Order: sequence, then structure tokens, then C-alpha cells
Amino acid sequence: MVAPPPDWVAKLTPSGPQGSELLATERAKSNINIDKLSNFMFGKEALENNAKILAILQSEKVFDKSQNAFMGRVEKFPVALARAKKLRQLQVKHNWSIEDYRVADGLISEPGPYGLHASMFLTALRDQGTAEQHKLFLEPAENYKYIGCYAQTELGHGSNVRGLETTATWDPADQTFVIHSPHLTASKWWIGSLGRTANYAVVMAQLILNGKSFGPHPFVVQVRDLKTHQPLDGVYVGDIGPKFGYNTMDNGFLLFNKVKIPHVNMLAKYSSVDVKTNKYVRPAAASLVYGTMTWVRSTIVLQSGQTLARGVTIATRYCAVRRQFQDRDDVSNDVTENQVLNYSMVQFRLLPLLASTFALHFTGKAMMEMYTQNQDRMKKAVANTRRGAGPEELQSGSDMLADLHATSCGLKALGSTIAAEGLEVCRRACGGHGYSQFSGIGSWYADYLPTTTWEGDNYMLTQQVARYLLKSARAVLKGKAPVNDTTEIFRTFLDAQDKGCAFDILSNDGDIVAAFAWRTSYLTFEALKHRDVEKQSWNSLLVDFWRLSTAHSQYLVVKNFYDALQSSSLTYELDSVSITTMHQLFRLFALSTLEKEASEFYSSSALTVRQIQLVRTKSVMQLLADIRPHALRLVDAWQFPDWQLDSSLGRKDGKVYEDMFYRASQLNPLNGLTVDPYPESDVLIKNDETGRGLQAKL
Amino acid sequence: MVAPPPDWVAKLTPSGPQGSELLATERAKSNINIDKLSNFMFGKEALENNAKILAILQSEKVFDKSQNAFMGRVEKFPVALARAKKLRQLQVKHNWSIEDYRVADGLISEPGPYGLHASMFLTALRDQGTAEQHKLFLEPAENYKYIGCYAQTELGHGSNVRGLETTATWDPADQTFVIHSPHLTASKWWIGSLGRTANYAVVMAQLILNGKSFGPHPFVVQVRDLKTHQPLDGVYVGDIGPKFGYNTMDNGFLLFNKVKIPHVNMLAKYSSVDVKTNKYVRPAAASLVYGTMTWVRSTIVLQSGQTLARGVTIATRYCAVRRQFQDRDDVSNDVTENQVLNYSMVQFRLLPLLASTFALHFTGKAMMEMYTQNQDRMKKAVANTRRGAGPEELQSGSDMLADLHATSCGLKALGSTIAAEGLEVCRRACGGHGYSQFSGIGSWYADYLPTTTWEGDNYMLTQQVARYLLKSARAVLKGKAPVNDTTEIFRTFLDAQDKGCAFDILSNDGDIVAAFAWRTSYLTFEALKHRDVEKQSWNSLLVDFWRLSTAHSQYLVVKNFYDALQSSSLTYELDSVSITTMHQLFRLFALSTLEKEASEFYSSSALTVRQIQLVRTKSVMQLLADIRPHALRLVDAWQFPDWQLDSSLGRKDGKVYEDMFYRASQLNPLNGLTVDPYPESDVLIKNDETGRGLQAKL
Repeated sequence: MVAPPPDWVAKLTPSGPQGSELLATERAKSNINIDKLSNFMFGKEALENNAKILAILQSEKVFDKSQNAFMGRVEKFPVALARAKKLRQLQVKHNWSIEDYRVADGLISEPGPYGLHASMFLTALRDQGTAEQHKLFLEPAENYKYIGCYAQTELGHGSNVRGLETTATWDPADQTFVIHSPHLTASKWWIGSLGRTANYAVVMAQLILNGKSFGPHPFVVQVRDLKTHQPLDGVYVGDIGPKFGYNTMDNGFLLFNKVKIPHVNMLAKYSSVDVKTNKYVRPAAASLVYGTMTWVRSTIVLQSGQTLARGVTIATRYCAVRRQFQDRDDVSNDVTENQVLNYSMVQFRLLPLLASTFALHFTGKAMMEMYTQNQDRMKKAVANTRRGAGPEELQSGSDMLADLHATSCGLKALGSTIAAEGLEVCRRACGGHGYSQFSGIGSWYADYLPTTTWEGDNYMLTQQVARYLLKSARAVLKGKAPVNDTTEIFRTFLDAQDKGCAFDILSNDGDIVAAFAWRTSYLTFEALKHRDVEKQSWNSLLVDFWRLSTAHSQYLVVKNFYDALQSSSLTYELDSVSITTMHQLFRLFALSTLEKEASEFYSSSALTVRQIQLVRTKSVMQLLADIRPHALRLVDAWQFPDWQLDSSLGRKDGKVYEDMFYRASQLNPLNGLTVDPYPESDVLIKNDETGRGLQAKL
Repeated sequence: MVAPPPDWVAKLTPSGPQGSELLATERAKSNINIDKLSNFMFGKEALENNAKILAILQSEKVFDKSQNAFMGRVEKFPVALARAKKLRQLQVKHNWSIEDYRVADGLISEPGPYGLHASMFLTALRDQGTAEQHKLFLEPAENYKYIGCYAQTELGHGSNVRGLETTATWDPADQTFVIHSPHLTASKWWIGSLGRTANYAVVMAQLILNGKSFGPHPFVVQVRDLKTHQPLDGVYVGDIGPKFGYNTMDNGFLLFNKVKIPHVNMLAKYSSVDVKTNKYVRPAAASLVYGTMTWVRSTIVLQSGQTLARGVTIATRYCAVRRQFQDRDDVSNDVTENQVLNYSMVQFRLLPLLASTFALHFTGKAMMEMYTQNQDRMKKAVANTRRGAGPEELQSGSDMLADLHATSCGLKALGSTIAAEGLEVCRRACGGHGYSQFSGIGSWYADYLPTTTWEGDNYMLTQQVARYLLKSARAVLKGKAPVNDTTEIFRTFLDAQDKGCAFDILSNDGDIVAAFAWRTSYLTFEALKHRDVEKQSWNSLLVDFWRLSTAHSQYLVVKNFYDALQSSSLTYELDSVSITTMHQLFRLFALSTLEKEASEFYSSSALTVRQIQLVRTKSVMQLLADIRPHALRLVDAWQFPDWQLDSSLGRKDGKVYEDMFYRASQLNPLNGLTVDPYPESDVLIKNDETGRGLQAKL
């Protein structure tokens, strides 16, 4: 804390109307029942549970956020580790479930150095280890005796896992694997929790048996001494340096110089090396592993709505407090400035994103349901295989898995892109103050950005979606397709193609969904023609595939939002204003998406130029005006505690300027420095505050 | 420096082919004469001068960049100030011109604490001060006896300057102005160089005379003691805290408690208070002040190409070094992975941006020329006024000024948006490594972002452009318009509107320009109809205005690029491959812009659906393939020294992985920390490297 301001400053208040008054007026404009809407979205119990966890976190000094924005990386990291430790202690103390732990993690909103231990390390051991290995590795890991990470990506290899260079060579002589990094590019890189924290790693390495490679497999390797925490012999490990965000996490590098590990360290649930024959034992039911990736992607889809909602909450509240200029057409002598949220240009930037948060929320829930259904079906299928299921039953399971895989790929790419890019739109909608770290959007955005790259780069993933759609289209043409939503929209399209369509998107919500389906189908059969008839190269079609995947994923979001609004629980649980507004949000999301992608709707003949013009100039603008009065209550329904947002601009009470000023003048250590400003002298520094020896540094 | 790696690590090299080999092969693919192209763009003399300045900077230890990425804000700032001081010393020593100083500043690529002194403070004193005030304030400021800033924006007021709350009340009793901050929101905010550095400020405050406000005017106010550097009585000043970027700059806040300043401290070149009558003296020739804002915006346009080119250079080089996956259609047994730059999806993201860099460069040059022409004309006009010029001559000068103003607003908004958003596309095109600070894009992007907000928020500015276009269109309809490019394209449109147009954009470059002009005209007359005939409110049309301004600015860029390629110096100075490639870059920029904005080209009937489809599926894809082999040489032509880029990924020699590894393992102070990883203990830390007392912090 810097010295408090003089009395004459402490007495100052913002010029009126006050932010708190403006937000109160805003909230009074709408009758939406916030609690009902929140309960409908998240469940009452979950919300109450979140509040309990919040209270626990707030009472712990280590989670105090007031200095977060000021710390350099070398200061940030140990604080983040201390927080990770406390979080783990609280988990034990309060017997928190994994879901509770995730809630706490979300409230803290900072990537912590235990992150990859708690997720990927434990998951890999659990899913890919045998019972013996569970005893040997998983148990100590679950008790945090081993702190681990998941070492897959390398300096020279990201997306292409098969291209990994690290080797694990089986040595029959002493029955060990030799882990080795043959090149600099083989260095493991980007490995979360590895830089300073982990003492164990699950290392993905090319299994080599008798000089032959069998592709990447997982090996458990100890990398640091459990007591001294120094690297073991033949291990070179460290932190990869600062990043655009995520600087509380110690992403690491890792090189091996012929490190020997015992046979039992190869995770052997699916494939293994037979010590007697020295032969490779082929994997069984690889589709279950496939399932884990799908689960991670589904989680990203589910979180994308909430991720974006933080930015939308902050920007909407601040745009209701911030006033700038009078209305140009106002002929009265009113000199009160207009709330920024009243400008149609601001509404046009923010409110479609508000609609997106709900669209992504309902899509994420549907995605998770689809995942759970598939897991149940797969468990049954495994059981049925044991009792000898027929090929049809197995085929049906595999069809659903392919559908699930493609859906999760497409929605992960679209959802995380909407969220990441939307956050930046929110930040800019806050004008100059959006650039301050006190906005709470910048660092949240920067930390979220890797989501567009990991678990499948968003552009790479579009190829998976296109491949699935082409395959489905071929099956439909051959009359051999399974019955699912994708094949159904293709059949509808093929049936109607000649006579054309006439979607009444301006008055019929179902027709909006149908227009999106039509566009997906059109683009699929176009791409199929390019590939199968014109024999164009895969590479030359990547842009078409990206467009196709985006179109299809947009269709899925529109459809899921639409379906959610047809559910009977909606009419049962929500008040009528909320229901009307939800339908408006659906239309705003769908129509503003449609308007941005207009040219594909024209060229597929799904819509006419006139229709799009009406959407652009009338429907969207009218929806903005309709939704505007409810904006504040709609963001309130997301129920972000101020502590979580950690934003001056997004404060629920509207005390934006007071908070900005307090943080700048009272919490900012730079104000402890006195410098000599003249060019001829050294930078003589008096440091009243931090005592960090800056003079010595120079 | 951390301890060097063990021998077995030091010996490792990346797996082949090496980055240096790949880049050499790339450069061999093209015959573009890089030096000729660079000279054509920048002039040989300027390039040689840049090299001299670079050598001087590199020899100064204080400019060493190797620790930049690791410092926290409290460490960064004094280092940045030391650099600013050295830069000023070098300027004096080498007698650098303002242009030389800017070149040096660009090479250092870090916003420095003298930034606002050297630009806005000196400019304000120079442009708005009288001869007496030049002697009193400008002279010591130019000699860095006073270090100043320009204090306009307030906590509660950004874009709307007229809404500023700080007051300067004339007190006839003692002939002083009383500078006062009546509210917290009156606090000056975001003021560059003010936080810790400046001892003087030009403060924009509402001039109050006899209880009546005369709007914002500039006042020179001392804020800190020249010796102790402590704030003066009645002044509360400090740094506003960390930002998304720009953290080497001390943006500050400033509050006044009835601070008295003498009469001479009101900058009085254009308006003043008469000490005898206590009356306001009205401003003369406000258009000259207008000119300064236009100059600043024109500079932003000029710099936008180069700003983006840094990111494009880095991404293009890295995408030529990075290899990932084999070509799917490759049936040979070649296991060499494909360069990422060969993927059409990557080309589709990067190469239109490469084209944009040239488009913006030529547009910026044209903008600057237009500005210079106008300045000359205005000087003549002022001289002519003195000798009694007629109203027509004055009108013509004012018309050109309006055109210049609108052009600079539109191009500033479009250019800085393309550059900012393009940099993020470049960062993501680098995949995971783009997220590392060693990519050199992230911090450059973060520092550039405020450009989209300052000197007129990019969305706000579009209203200025629309207002000008509407006014011009009204004049054309009345037959009273001046002759300029804007009115000419409107007349062409009105003449041809009935019979329609048939632009042959696929084979005629001039027709591409005409199609963009048509779209601008169509949107202008549509907006005019909404406003003048249908009497729609200004607020309800803001989205239309934004679309119109964007369309018009895109037309201007397309036209300027086209015009630059018609110049005779092009054929004289460039080789034939370069000329062909420049024309391809023109088409790629224009057609990929056109394709993204397709729906406005349809709805204005400028083009048919079929034409757009061909552009999308054929022309653009073919241009990508045509330009691909020249990509490396084209970015080389921008002539960024490695020292300026400070990027592992963008190294000219392609040693990407060696440099990433060196920086992570050898320069990264986090690797000096040893932590206790177990949750039950404190974070016990051994700090071998930094000695920053982290343990105490916890």
C-alpha cells in the first residue's frame, strides 16, 4: 500500500449520475427474474454450493487478488504455487469432489502449477495404467507424493503426434526401456507443471522394439529427486519462459540422455511389450482412449459460454455506467451524456455476444449429454462384446462415436474461437479503460487464448469435421448411412434440391434452423464433388473444409439453442419475460451469424438477397432494441461474484471509477518509485515501497 | 544467465532439414530482387541511414533486449527510462533529426517514458504557444529542462473532449487561472509520461470567465518540483497501473485542488483572455489545429503497413521452417514432413496479410502526400487571405481539408484495425509457439492495440467519414459539389445506376477499383435515403455508417495500391518478377477483401453471385499459389533487422529452435528457482539466480 491520498482527494466523488444509480435504473427496466433464470441454467443446488466454496476461498489470505496485476513472472509463480497448495489442502479438509475443486479453481481464475497434475497426469495414469501400475504410480500421485505432468508436445512437433522424436527403446538384455532425445527438436516443450514443479512425467515416446518403431506410447518417468528436487541424471528440465498469458503456470521443457526405466513404467492397459517374447502386444478397444479426448473437447465447449460471459458481463455493466456525448438528434437542452450502451453500434458489438453466451451454454450442455450417452452405450457395448454382440450393434456404437468425435471437434473449434475473439471485442467495447489490467478482461483473454490451439488446433480440427461430413454424405448417396441428424439433413437437402427451398426465416424459428442445415448440406455436397468427382487434392480443399466445418458447427449451435428453448422445463421454470427474451436471444444469435456469413446463404440458394437485406437492416436492429432493456439482468443471471471477475469496470455495484482510482493510487507499487527525469543523469531511484533493489539492477 | 547445459545437451541439433537450409531453399525459389524492391519502397538512402543508427544502438549495453521478456513492470519502467535518456543523449551527440530519432525509437520498439514529451508536449507548445510562451516553455522543454506531457483524457471522459470536467477559472483579482478538479471523474487519466516522469503538463481544461464556460483550452501547469521531483502543493499525481501492454510507459493520473497559474500559462496562439477587459478573445484559423490531428492520423496510416509487416515477416519465416504432417495425397514413401507454409489454409491466412502490408504502405505514402499538398495549399491560402482572397479560393481550401480529414479518419480506422487484427492472425498462424513471448509478436501486438482507440476510436471515426460522404452526396445531388475523387465516383454511379454495371473483375484490375467505388456510392446513397428521406435517427444508423466508412476506406486502399502500380517509377526501378508479383498482391488484397465483404457487392448489384463464387473458389486460391514461392523474399524486402524483431521464430537465418532453446534454458530467471512441490509444506524456495527475496514475499 502506498500512502493514502490527501483529504481533498479522498473527498472527491464521480460526477453524477453515479454508477450505482445507473445500474439500479438499468435493473429496474426489466422484469426478468434473475434467480429463476440462473437456477434454470445452473441448478439451484450448484449455485448454493458455489457460494459456500467462494466464502472459504475469500477467507484465505493467500488468494487475495489485489497484487496480481502488479507482479512480474518470477514473483507470480511462487505465489501461484502457494495457492495451488492451499487449494489442495482445502480439497482434503472439506472433502471436495472433483467438481467442487473445479469450481474453486474457476473462482480463483488463475492457471496453477498443479494444473496438469490434477488433470492430465492423474487421468493418464488412471485410464492407461494397469491395476499394478495404479498401485505403483496412481496412488502416490493421488496423494501428491508424486507431482506429475503429461509430456507429449515437443519443440518440433505439436499437432502431429506421430511425428514425435523422443524414443523409448526396449532393451531385452536388462528388460528396460531407454528414453532418449535424439535431437534438440525432440525436447518436450509446453509441458504444463513441468518447468519447476513436477517430479514425474508421463512421457509420450516412440516405442522401438528390435529396431522397429511402433508409434507413440506413454511411459512413466521420474524427472526430479523427491527430496532435493534436483533433476535426475540424464535429465535436462526447466521452464520454457514467459508467454502471452498463462504466466502463473510453469510450462516446461525436458530432454533425456538414455535414461533407463523398468518394464512396468510403460502404461500397459491397452498395449504393452511382452517380456518373455520381446514382442509388441496390440492395443484393445482404442476407442476408449479416443473417448478421453472427446471428453476434454466437450468440456471446452461447455466452458466457452461461461468464458465469454465474463467479458460480456464486464463490458455490459461498464457500458451502462459509462456516458459519452449527447444524442445527436436530441433537440432538448438536456446536457446529460448518453450511456454508451444506448448507442446502436455498441449494441451491435455486444448484444450478439450476449446471445452467444447462452447459445454456447445450451450447446455445451447438449454436447456433454451426448458424451454421457455415448459412454453408457460404449460400456454396454463392451459388456455385449464379451457376451458376443453382433456386428450391427458394434457398427452402431462406432457410428455414434464418429459422430461424437466430429461434433466435439467442430464445436470445440467454433466455441473457443467465438469465446476468444468475443472477449477481445468486449475489451475494446470498454474503450480506453478496456486496456487497463483493472478491466479484468485482458489477462482473462490472454490466459484463455491457448484453448484455440490445444486439444487440436482450431484450424486442424476442421479437417476432422469435413472428413466426417464427406463420409456421411457418401454413405447417404450409397443408401447405406446410419440414421442420425447429419444424414437426415443431407437426405432432406437431396430430396428438396431440385425444387429448391423457401425458408421463412423472418417469422419462423424452425426455418432458421433449416436454413443453416441447408447451407451445411450444400457445402458438403460441393466439397464432395470437388474431392470425389473433380479429384482435387486434399490440400487445395482445406479452405473449403474450414468453411464447411464452420458452417456445420454454426448449424449445431443454432439447433442446440433452438432445441433447448423447446424443452418443457423452460415453460415450467421461467417467467414469461425471460422466455420471450430467450427466444429473442436465439434469433439474434442465429440471424447475426447468418448475416455475417450471408454469401454462403445466397450461393446455396437457401435465402434470397432480399431476405438477407431485411435481416441486416431490420430484424437484427429490432432485436438489439428489444433485448437492450434486459441486458443488465441477463448478465446478472450468469452470477459471477465480483471476487471472481476482479474487475473495476464490471463491478456489480457500478462503482467503476472509485475502484479504478483506488487500485491505481493505493495498490500500485510503481507509485513508490521516485525517478530523476533528466536525460543527462542516471536513473536515480528512491523506492519507498517495494525495496526490490532496482538501482542495483541498472 | 543460468548455468550452461551439460555437454550432451549442448551437442544436440534440430532434426533435419535445418531451418537455415529451408530458408535458403525458399529464397532460391524466387527471382525477386530484394534490394531493388526495398529501395523502391523506402529509398536507398533511408535504408543506409537506418543501418547506421542500428549499429549505434546495438553498441549501447542499455538497449540489450535479452531480459525484456522476463521483467515485471516495476523492473521494466526504470530500464525503459534509462533507455529513453540514452536515446536523447545519442540524439544530441549524433545530431539526429526528428526522423532519425523516430527510426531509432522504432528499432528499439518499446514505448518509452519520454514518448509524450517528445511528441505531444513539444507539439502543443510549438503549435499553440505564442512567441513569448515559446521562450518561456518551449525552449526549456526542447532542452529537457522541463519534461512534459499532454493531459487531455479524464477518468470519465475519453472521446468527448467537450465533456471534460477539469476547470480553469479566470480570477481577475490576481490575474491567474485556477485549475481545479471538481470530481473524481475529472482526474486526468491515461496521460503518457505523467505517471512518474513529467514535471510539466499541458492540461486541457474548461475555460471559465465570469461564470461562463468557453470550452476546453490548453494550459501549461507545473506538476512536480524540478529538484526533489515531488508533487507540488494541490497536485495529486501518479501512475495508473499496469495495462495489457505499453507497460514501459508510465501513463498517469492527475488531480488539482485549486492550483493557481499565471495568465501567461494559457497557450494563447489561437485564443486567449484579455487581461484588461477580462474578455475571451476568439480563436483564429482553427483549421490549422485540425491539421495537427490529421497529421497524427496520417502517420498511423503510414505505420500500419510496417506494423503488420513485422508479424507477417515472423510468421512467414517460421511457417517455412516449421514442418508438420505429410501431404495426405502424397503416395510416395517420403516421410519428410511438409512445410506449414505449403498448406493452403495457412496461405489463406497469411498471404492476404502480406498483400495488406504493401497495400497499406502505398496508401500511407499517398495519405502523407495528400497531407503535405494540403499544408502547402493552406499556407498559400493564409497568405492569400492576407492579400484578400476571394470566397471561392477559400472554399476550395476548406473542401480539400474536409476531404483530407475524412480520408485520414477512415484510413486510420481501417489501417490500424487491419494491422492489429492481422498481427493476432500472424501469432496464431505460428501455432503453439506463437504464444511464447519469444515469438516476438505478442508484446508487439499488445503495445500496438491502443492505436485502435487513440486519436479517435476506430468506431467513432466512422461517423466522421459517413458525415462527409453524406454531405458530398447531397452536394452532388444539388449539382454544387467540388470536383474530387469522391464526388466523381458518386456522379459515375448516379449516371450508370439505371443501366447497371458490368465490372469485369476477373480480368481487369481497373474494374476491381470501379467495383469498390460502386459499392461505396451505393451504400452512401442508401444511407442518405435513410437519413434524409426516411428521417431515421442518427443513432439508429450508426451500424450503416460504420459499414459505409469501412467500404469507402477499403476502396481508398484498393485505389491507392492500384495507382501506385501505375507509376512510371515502378517499371523503371523494379525487375519484371517483382512487378508481376506486385500486381498479384494487388489482386489478392482486393479480391480477398471483396470476397469477405461479398454480400455488399451482391446487394449493390456491383457483382453477380457467380463472379463472387469464382473469386472465392478460383482466383484467390490461384493467387495464393502464384505468390507462395515469393513469400520469403517479399518479407525480406521489408528489411527488418533481427535485432528489431527480437523473435526466435522470425530469425532471418531460420535458427528458430536453437534460439527458443537458448532463451528458455539460458536467459530465463525462473530456472534459478527451486521449489518444494508438495502441498503440505510452504513454498520453500532456493533462488540461485535472481536474489530477489521471493521467500520474504510469501
